[in-house]
Amino acid sequence: MRVGGQRFRTIWIDLEDPRVVRIIDQRALPHAFVIEEIPDTRAMARAIRDMHVRGAGLIGAAAAYGMYLAVLEADAAPDFQRSLEQSRDRLLATRPTAVNLAWAVDRQLRAIHAAASPAGKVRAALESAHAIADEDADHCRRIGEHGLPVIREIAARKPGQPVNILTHCNAGWLAFVDHGSATAPIYAAHDAGIPVHVWVDETRPRNQGAALTAWELGQHGVPHTLVVDNAGGHLMQHGRVDLVITGTDRTTATGDVANKIGTYLKALAARDNGVPFYVALPSSSFDWNMTDGLREIPIERRDDAEVLEVRGRCGDAVHSVRIAPPGTTAANYAFDVTPARLVTALITERGLCNADPASIRALFPRGHKDP
Amino acid sequence: MRVGGQRFRTIWIDLEDPRVVRIIDQRALPHAFVIEEIPDTRAMARAIRDMHVRGAGLIGAAAAYGMYLAVLEADAAPDFQRSLEQSRDRLLATRPTAVNLAWAVDRQLRAIHAAASPAGKVRAALESAHAIADEDADHCRRIGEHGLPVIREIAARKPGQPVNILTHCNAGWLAFVDHGSATAPIYAAHDAGIPVHVWVDETRPRNQGAALTAWELGQHGVPHTLVVDNAGGHLMQHGRVDLVITGTDRTTATGDVANKIGTYLKALAARDNGVPFYVALPSSSFDWNMTDGLREIPIERRDDAEVLEVRGRCGDAVHSVRIAPPGTTAANYAFDVTPARLVTALITERGLCNADPASIRALFPRGHKDP
Repeated sequence: MRVGGQRFRTIWIDLEDPRVVRIIDQRALPHAFVIEEIPDTRAMARAIRDMHVRGAGLIGAAAAYGMYLAVLEADAAPDFQRSLEQSRDRLLATRPTAVNLAWAVDRQLRAIHAAASPAGKVRAALESAHAIADEDADHCRRIGEHGLPVIREIAARKPGQPVNILTHCNAGWLAFVDHGSATAPIYAAHDAGIPVHVWVDETRPRNQGAALTAWELGQHGVPHTLVVDNAGGHLMQHGRVDLVITGTDRTTATGDVANKIGTYLKALAARDNGVPFYVALPSSSFDWNMTDGLREIPIERRDDAEVLEVRGRCGDAVHSVRIAPPGTTAANYAFDVTPARLVTALITERGLCNADPASIRALFPRGHKDP
Repeated sequence: MRVGGQRFRTIWIDLEDPRVVRIIDQRALPHAFVIEEIPDTRAMARAIRDMHVRGAGLIGAAAAYGMYLAVLEADAAPDFQRSLEQSRDRLLATRPTAVNLAWAVDRQLRAIHAAASPAGKVRAALESAHAIADEDADHCRRIGEHGLPVIREIAARKPGQPVNILTHCNAGWLAFVDHGSATAPIYAAHDAGIPVHVWVDETRPRNQGAALTAWELGQHGVPHTLVVDNAGGHLMQHGRVDLVITGTDRTTATGDVANKIGTYLKALAARDNGVPFYVALPSSSFDWNMTDGLREIPIERRDDAEVLEVRGRCGDAVHSVRIAPPGTTAANYAFDVTPARLVTALITERGLCNADPASIRALFPRGHKDP
């Protein structure tokens, strides 16, 4: 997507410097646009854990490029296998909820083991990382194509008026390699000349909506309005939301959706007001081994400081302010699970399907193993 | 309630300086404890509009004392009646949603008109303001007495474990003259030795939960944990909430509850998880003329800056940081309406009743006119 008119992905390798991975350091957004060089797996693990990069697809791509860096390091280490395993464990330990992480690491390990020579392993890891990134971007583009008719149909029912779409957190191109999941149909509709307007949930505690979604929609020229996370129910009660689209960090084979904390509340409000609630995801976000999201999906608990403090810009400086009294402690659960019964449909790279085991299986009969 | 061990109300008049009303300037909390002197109706209108004081009961008491100041001013004005009406209009224009405001102003006007002499009108307005404040405190104390058995009953089912109560915004003593509405049963239970723990919603955009509820619970020694507004659904899904208690800015004669934006989302989650959802209110928060909360209750829209910025402490300074990119605009709806069907029961100064017209009428057969 475009930043100041120039095309960017969220992660890439420059041809002239192929031993370094480059990312957009998303912690600096929306106040500054910072490109960070990632020279080794330690730096990549830190970038994932401390959320320089975040979002289901991008975590996967970052882990994939991290495993490429891991092979470079293993190649120079006394024990290749031991070094590779340490890097793998370091990357796997960064974020517990996003399924794309383990999926990408596994896929990289298979590619690496399939190659014979050290040089071959490096090449295989790089090519496979590129493939994972390209696939992520391509899947998101297809999600946009498949989601577009949903928006077009609503637009046809209210000619001359914008289609109002509410989204939570950032499942935009910043959360993937390109296009985004939840935003892909929105960008597709906007680019097709359909008037859309996005209600952007600020998404406490880390404010990915205010900082990232508002920023990327603004860069692409999509009309949007920031609201607090509390506002969605009220907007739906008053007919101000035509549909909700969110992303997901992990969706079970039965259609239960783990996504940023607060998504479940919006799904309840959508159901109560007859507003369709869509979840957009590339198939890499399915966890084919899980059938009960509420019991099985691990929910990351993050640092309380994210709740007790808010980061923002004051004049030229960016810093945190504390909103709570001294002595008050917090709990910081990063995700919640929206039961499949509240999901109108899943929008995947292969098309739409209901959030139930049979419909999901019909679209993905062989799970991740499909070509 | 106590602040640093000393007893306080949220609004009062010192005997040695009876022409000035004193309030706690709640904008400074939780970072500083500031007492503000209000010398005239203009200052009182500003204090209500700009939320030096806020909360259903306290807005009523502040308007009542504002009308006392209005009589003092009218007494010195060329046209008593005209001056009084200007002050009345100024106070009524400050906040549209809280019904206590108009209720208190009306009651003051009746008291003022019933007195004959100018000195009598001053005395009547002061006595009536004191009566309104005392009544508010007394009603909240009774709400605590009536709510206590609800908490005691849950405590009996889980011996040795705290009763987990979630609350949204601040319906604490800071929102009334004393005790609070939602907090009154919590304080009563804590003071009775029942172990309670409160999940405090931070309550964006103004963070009254983080700034006020956490502060007053802390001052009273009630265990509590701050969570973002997004977290309640997840906590309820995992059995971490035994009951929800909120306040209300206006409740219809049919039991529809206007309260801080986001309350509706918590009520939906409570219903979805079988968690009882209580609304605590003195009868002054009923609007006996309304029967459809969603259509009839006016919802205040406040300054977008409250959404785009967050206020907090950084070192020794308190200031605002901007969380959104340049150019992004916001919408700031201050309240939402929770339909009566989602409310387990109302806790009033006369006891509990179901949120339906017949049950409410049975408890308050003559509405506000009751002694």
